[in-house]
Amino acid sequence: MSEAVTPRSQDYAAWYIQVIQRAELVDYGPVKGTMVIKPYGYALWENIRDQLDRRFKATGHQNAYFPMFIPYSFIQKEAEHVEGFSPELALVTHAGGKELEEPLVVRPTSETIINYMFEKWVKSYRDLPLLINQWANVVRWELRPRPFLRTTEFLWQEGHTAHATPEEAEEETLKMLDVYVDFVYNEAAIPVIQGRKSDNEKFAGAARTYTIEAMMGDGKALQAGTSHNLGQNFSKAFGTRFLTQDGTLEHPWQTSWGVSTRMVGGVIMTHGDDKGLVLPPRLAPVQAIIVPIWKNDSEKAAVKEMVLRVEQTLIAAGVRAKADLSEQETAGWKFNEYEMRGVPLRIEIGPKDVEKNAVVFARRDRPGKEGKQFGIPADDVGRVAIEWLADIQQSLLERAIQFRDSNIVDVETPERFAEVIANGQWARAWWAGTGTDERKLKDETGATLRCFPLSQPGGTGRCFLTGAEASEVAVFAKAY
Amino acid sequence: MSEAVTPRSQDYAAWYIQVIQRAELVDYGPVKGTMVIKPYGYALWENIRDQLDRRFKATGHQNAYFPMFIPYSFIQKEAEHVEGFSPELALVTHAGGKELEEPLVVRPTSETIINYMFEKWVKSYRDLPLLINQWANVVRWELRPRPFLRTTEFLWQEGHTAHATPEEAEEETLKMLDVYVDFVYNEAAIPVIQGRKSDNEKFAGAARTYTIEAMMGDGKALQAGTSHNLGQNFSKAFGTRFLTQDGTLEHPWQTSWGVSTRMVGGVIMTHGDDKGLVLPPRLAPVQAIIVPIWKNDSEKAAVKEMVLRVEQTLIAAGVRAKADLSEQETAGWKFNEYEMRGVPLRIEIGPKDVEKNAVVFARRDRPGKEGKQFGIPADDVGRVAIEWLADIQQSLLERAIQFRDSNIVDVETPERFAEVIANGQWARAWWAGTGTDERKLKDETGATLRCFPLSQPGGTGRCFLTGAEASEVAVFAKAY
Repeated sequence: MSEAVTPRSQDYAAWYIQVIQRAELVDYGPVKGTMVIKPYGYALWENIRDQLDRRFKATGHQNAYFPMFIPYSFIQKEAEHVEGFSPELALVTHAGGKELEEPLVVRPTSETIINYMFEKWVKSYRDLPLLINQWANVVRWELRPRPFLRTTEFLWQEGHTAHATPEEAEEETLKMLDVYVDFVYNEAAIPVIQGRKSDNEKFAGAARTYTIEAMMGDGKALQAGTSHNLGQNFSKAFGTRFLTQDGTLEHPWQTSWGVSTRMVGGVIMTHGDDKGLVLPPRLAPVQAIIVPIWKNDSEKAAVKEMVLRVEQTLIAAGVRAKADLSEQETAGWKFNEYEMRGVPLRIEIGPKDVEKNAVVFARRDRPGKEGKQFGIPADDVGRVAIEWLADIQQSLLERAIQFRDSNIVDVETPERFAEVIANGQWARAWWAGTGTDERKLKDETGATLRCFPLSQPGGTGRCFLTGAEASEVAVFAKAY
Repeated sequence: MSEAVTPRSQDYAAWYIQVIQRAELVDYGPVKGTMVIKPYGYALWENIRDQLDRRFKATGHQNAYFPMFIPYSFIQKEAEHVEGFSPELALVTHAGGKELEEPLVVRPTSETIINYMFEKWVKSYRDLPLLINQWANVVRWELRPRPFLRTTEFLWQEGHTAHATPEEAEEETLKMLDVYVDFVYNEAAIPVIQGRKSDNEKFAGAARTYTIEAMMGDGKALQAGTSHNLGQNFSKAFGTRFLTQDGTLEHPWQTSWGVSTRMVGGVIMTHGDDKGLVLPPRLAPVQAIIVPIWKNDSEKAAVKEMVLRVEQTLIAAGVRAKADLSEQETAGWKFNEYEMRGVPLRIEIGPKDVEKNAVVFARRDRPGKEGKQFGIPADDVGRVAIEWLADIQQSLLERAIQFRDSNIVDVETPERFAEVIANGQWARAWWAGTGTDERKLKDETGATLRCFPLSQPGGTGRCFLTGAEASEVAVFAKAY
C-alpha cells in the first residue's frame, strides 16, 4: 500500500488505474466491465449523493423507486431511444425456471417505465408539475470499461419531471443544470463549461440536452452530468395526456437529468497528483487524519492521550476526523498512505507537541514545508481545522479553474484546431458545421463537440471549418 | 382519495391492498410481481434506511457496493444455496447484442459474489474482522406477489462479515439481531419474538439463522429481519483462507443479515386501523399536518398567517411538519386524507384559534374527542408536539405489545394447537419434532415453526406432537 504509483505526468491512464486500486476506492468484479465499490469509494459516493439529494429536495423533488425490469416493447416505443440504447442492453430471458414470453430489459435509464406510470398518474393540470427523482443502479453493456468512468453497471440518480407547458419544462431543465453546476463548484471543486449538446451528441429521445463538461488532469473532457428537455417525445409515445385549465387534452412536456458514479472519477482526475488522490474537503470521507509519533512507551501514553483528545475536539467541531493509532506501521508509512488516499488535512502529534500542548497541521494540496504549520494550540484545532479545510476547498477550485481556463484555446482554422487537440487542450471556435462535419472532425482529430457553451460571445463569426457564418461558438475536446 | 377503505376487521387482505394504494405508498409495475414505490412510501423507506444505517455505522460496519450480475457458476458453489435459490432466479442470457457464454444471475442475495471478493481481500488475521454492508435491489421470482411483502424486485440491506473465530461470528450474528430488535422497538414500534429458525426454515447456506418475528394485525407472523451465522460454508466454497496469528491457514467464519422493504409492510400491518395507515412518529414522513379552517376571505388571511407561523415554529423545533393550504379541498376532506395517510398528529387552526393565539391538537392513534385537545398556546407548539409525538410512539408500541402477548397461546396437545392456529393466533409449545413433522403440521394447519425464542422457560417438557422430551419451546403461526 505504501508503494508509489506511476507519476501522473508519465502515464495518466496507468496512474488512474493504480490510484483507484491503491487508495481502495474500487476493485474489479468477476463479470467483465463491472466494478466493486469498496468502502472508501462508497463513502465518497455517499457524500456526493447526500449533497445532491439535499439540493433535489430543496427544489421540490421527491424520491421514488421504479422497477429495474422493463418490458422490451417499452424501449421500442420511442424511435430515437431504441436506436440509441439497443446495442447496450442486457436482457433477462428466463426467470422462475421458465422462459419469459417477452424478454425484460435491465434498465439502461428509466424514461420508458416512468412514462408508463406517469400515464396512469397524470390526468389533470392539477397533477402537474410532477417532480420525481430516483437513486438506482443501471446497466449499459460497455465494450471498453474503465472503473467509475464507464462500467456495465453503475449507480446514479435520474430525475424525471412532467409539466403543463414547454416553457416550464425548459425552465426545469436549466434549473437542474444549475443545481449540478452549484454542486460541482461548491462541493466537488470542479469547474465546468455548461452548455447545450449538438444533435449528434444529445440523449437518445431528447429534444435538447444540456451538459456540464469538466476538464480532467490530462486535458480530456468528462461529461459530468446532463439535463434533458424531452419535449413531448415520451408522453406521446406512452399516450400520457392531461386536462388543461382550458378543458382541452394535451401531452405533458418532460425533462430528465442525471449524475452518476462517474462523478467519483471526475473528482479523482480533476484534483489527483503524482502522490495519489487529493480529495475536496467537502466530499472527503475523512477530512483530517491524526498521526501519532512516538519512540518509546513513556512517550506513547502521553501522545496517545493527546491524539484521542484532539480527535474528540475535532469531531465535536463537526470535522470528519480519524486518529490512526495502529502500531503495525510507522508514522512515515502512514503519511504516505493518507497522502495516497487524498485526506485533505494531516495532523501530527509527537512528544514535543505534547509538551507544548500544540499540534502540527499539513495540508495535502501543498506538498512539503509550504503546506505545514507548527505550534497550533490543541484547544484551537477545531476552529483552525475548519478554516484550513475551507481554504483547501477554495484553493482546489481556483487551481482547477486556472487549469481549465489556460487550456481552452480559441481557434480559427482547421490546422490550429488539430494542433490544439493534439496538444491535449480544448478548442473553442465559431461553428456552423453539420453532424457529418462533426463525425469527420472526430475521425481526423479524435475530438468531439462537447457543447455550445451557455455563455456566448454574442454576434456572429466564421465557422473555423466551413467558413460559413456561425451564430454560436462550440468547444471541442477529446473526451472520456 | 377521500373514499373509505374496506374495514380491516371485515377483509384484512382487501384492506391492506386498498390502504397502500389510497395512501399512495405504492403502485403496481408493468411486469408481474414488481412494484413502484411512490414518494410517500419511499420517504417511509428512507427513514427506515437512515435509522438502520446509523446503527450499522455505529457498530463499525462500512457500506460498499457489489455488482448485481453474478456468474451462474457462483450460485452453484454452495450446495444448499443453489437448491434454495434456483427456482427464484432471473437470468440474463443476452447483452450488448450477443448471447453470453455463461448466463448471469440477477442477485437474489450476494453471499456468492461477496465471497468471491473476500477471497481476494482476506489474507491475514489482520484483515479481520471484515464488516461490510450493502444497500441494494435484489430479485427473487415470486409466484404470489404482494406489494412490500413479496415482490419480484425489492430493496434491502445485506450485511456480510468475516471473522477469525467461530465465537466471533456467532457474537456478530446475535449483535446484528439485537440491532434489528433495537430498531423495530424504538423506531418502528413493532414488538417481535426473536429466536432461532429450525433447520427447515433457515437460510439456504447458513449454519444457523436467527430471526425477528412480528405479529401483524390479523395475527399472521411476518419475518421482519434475519441474521445468519454462515459458518465456513461460503469461505470453503470460495476457497477463502487467512493466515492465523499462529501461522496456520484457516477459512474465516462468516455472517450475513438483512432487512428489506418488507419492513414497510410490517409497519402498515402492525399499526393500521379501519381508517387507514397509522405511522409511528419516528418513521413518519410527515409527523404533524396543519389544516387551516376558514369560511371567508377575511378569516382566510389571518388563519393562513398563523398556519405558516406554526409550521415554522414546528420545523424549527425539529418536527417534520407540513401545512396543507390547498383550496381545492375542504378541511373535512383533508382530515380524512391525512388519517388515511397515517400522519401521527393533526393541528387544526381556525378563526377562533387565531383570536386565542392557540391551536387544536388531534392524535391519529386515538380517534374522536379522546385524542383531541383545544387551546394549546401557539408559542408552545414545538415543545407540546414533541411530547405528543413521543407519547404516540410509546402508545403504539404498548398497544402492539399487548396485542402480541394476548395472542400467543401455550399449547400442549395437537387439538389445542389446531384450535389456536385456526383462531388466527400463535401457538407456543415444547417441540422435539423433525423437519418432516414440521411439514406435516404445515399441511394440516397452515402454521410454520416461526422460531425457537431466545427467551426460553428453561428445563424440559413434553413435545406437544410427539410426546418426546423436548429441551426447547417453539412458536408456530401462519405467516406472510
